[in-house]
Amino acid sequence: MNYPNGKKYIPQTIKINKTDKHINAANRGMALENLINETNAFYSAQNICLITKRPTPINVVKVDYSRGARIIDAYFEKQSTTDYNGVYKGKYIDFEAKSTKSKTSFPLHNIYQHQIDHLKKVIQHGGIAFFIIELTSYNDYYLLDANILINYFEMHSRKSIPIEVIRKQGYKLKLGYKPVLNYIEAVDTLYFND
Amino acid sequence: MNYPNGKKYIPQTIKINKTDKHINAANRGMALENLINETNAFYSAQNICLITKRPTPINVVKVDYSRGARIIDAYFEKQSTTDYNGVYKGKYIDFEAKSTKSKTSFPLHNIYQHQIDHLKKVIQHGGIAFFIIELTSYNDYYLLDANILINYFEMHSRKSIPIEVIRKQGYKLKLGYKPVLNYIEAVDTLYFND
Repeated sequence: MNYPNGKKYIPQTIKINKTDKHINAANRGMALENLINETNAFYSAQNICLITKRPTPINVVKVDYSRGARIIDAYFEKQSTTDYNGVYKGKYIDFEAKSTKSKTSFPLHNIYQHQIDHLKKVIQHGGIAFFIIELTSYNDYYLLDANILINYFEMHSRKSIPIEVIRKQGYKLKLGYKPVLNYIEAVDTLYFND
Repeated sequence: MNYPNGKKYIPQTIKINKTDKHINAANRGMALENLINETNAFYSAQNICLITKRPTPINVVKVDYSRGARIIDAYFEKQSTTDYNGVYKGKYIDFEAKSTKSKTSFPLHNIYQHQIDHLKKVIQHGGIAFFIIELTSYNDYYLLDANILINYFEMHSRKSIPIEVIRKQGYKLKLGYKPVLNYIEAVDTLYFND
């Protein structure tokens, strides 16, 4: 999810016939980030929760002030935290979204130690931490509690999580029209069921 | 707090004699953002809370991939939310930090409607929302609940808050050594006193 874009989110128009039953086919082409941004815009408009994407951190090297503070030299930095955070029912929510094309396992090589450290701190302070994982080969989406991924990251020598583990221990997300990826339903079930 | 910097925070060394009683004189020169970043680094290291600064949003226009994805044209955007958010005792925390040199009132012209909308939503969803205000002429720092500022922003024709209101309705923050600006003590008193 290191999309080099600090822009304010502008919802995309999904051209789709509301009676079209092949909604999944339309969503299939959308990048995971777009699915989540669309969903967050819907959640915000409907006053369900407030989750925002952190801007991509950029290290600014040189600014041309003669052209109205135009940046002429800069580079992308790794996100030191996660991509999304916000509030739902007063609770702090923090998550990272990742896709994999693999049919057998979810690789952990593009999840960084400082992100793991960040998520451990979130949990320690009573926040809700998870991953949204897209299995592009299956067009499946799962919410996986961060503790499960952290355990694999730290305890297992193999740096991946078998798809079977994600299917068993994750919560399968529904793809739809509004919202396109209803992850807050999973959050409700997993973290607010008392 | 529109400091054009998406860098990962690296704590600055404050060269100061620990027995020096003139700690406020040393802090006086520090930008408010640095005071808060230092404080957040301390809070994180001490496992008190986890508050992070959102990177400054930058709109990337042109990237030179021949030089390893170097950004050669871009510009700063206004923060559409606030500068800081995070988690304390499970609760969502969201705030903006602003300084004023004025001796009589805190001007609201550099607080934007979309930031007000964002903070209203934070409150609506049960989060904790406030401003940290620096009165540079007095070397005073206050935590002001967002509702008070929102009320002035929306209900009063004068686009500023009198200093007297901040002194009466705000919570005066203590400047110290570690942490340099102990705002979580104010959060505890104002929002966790039940």
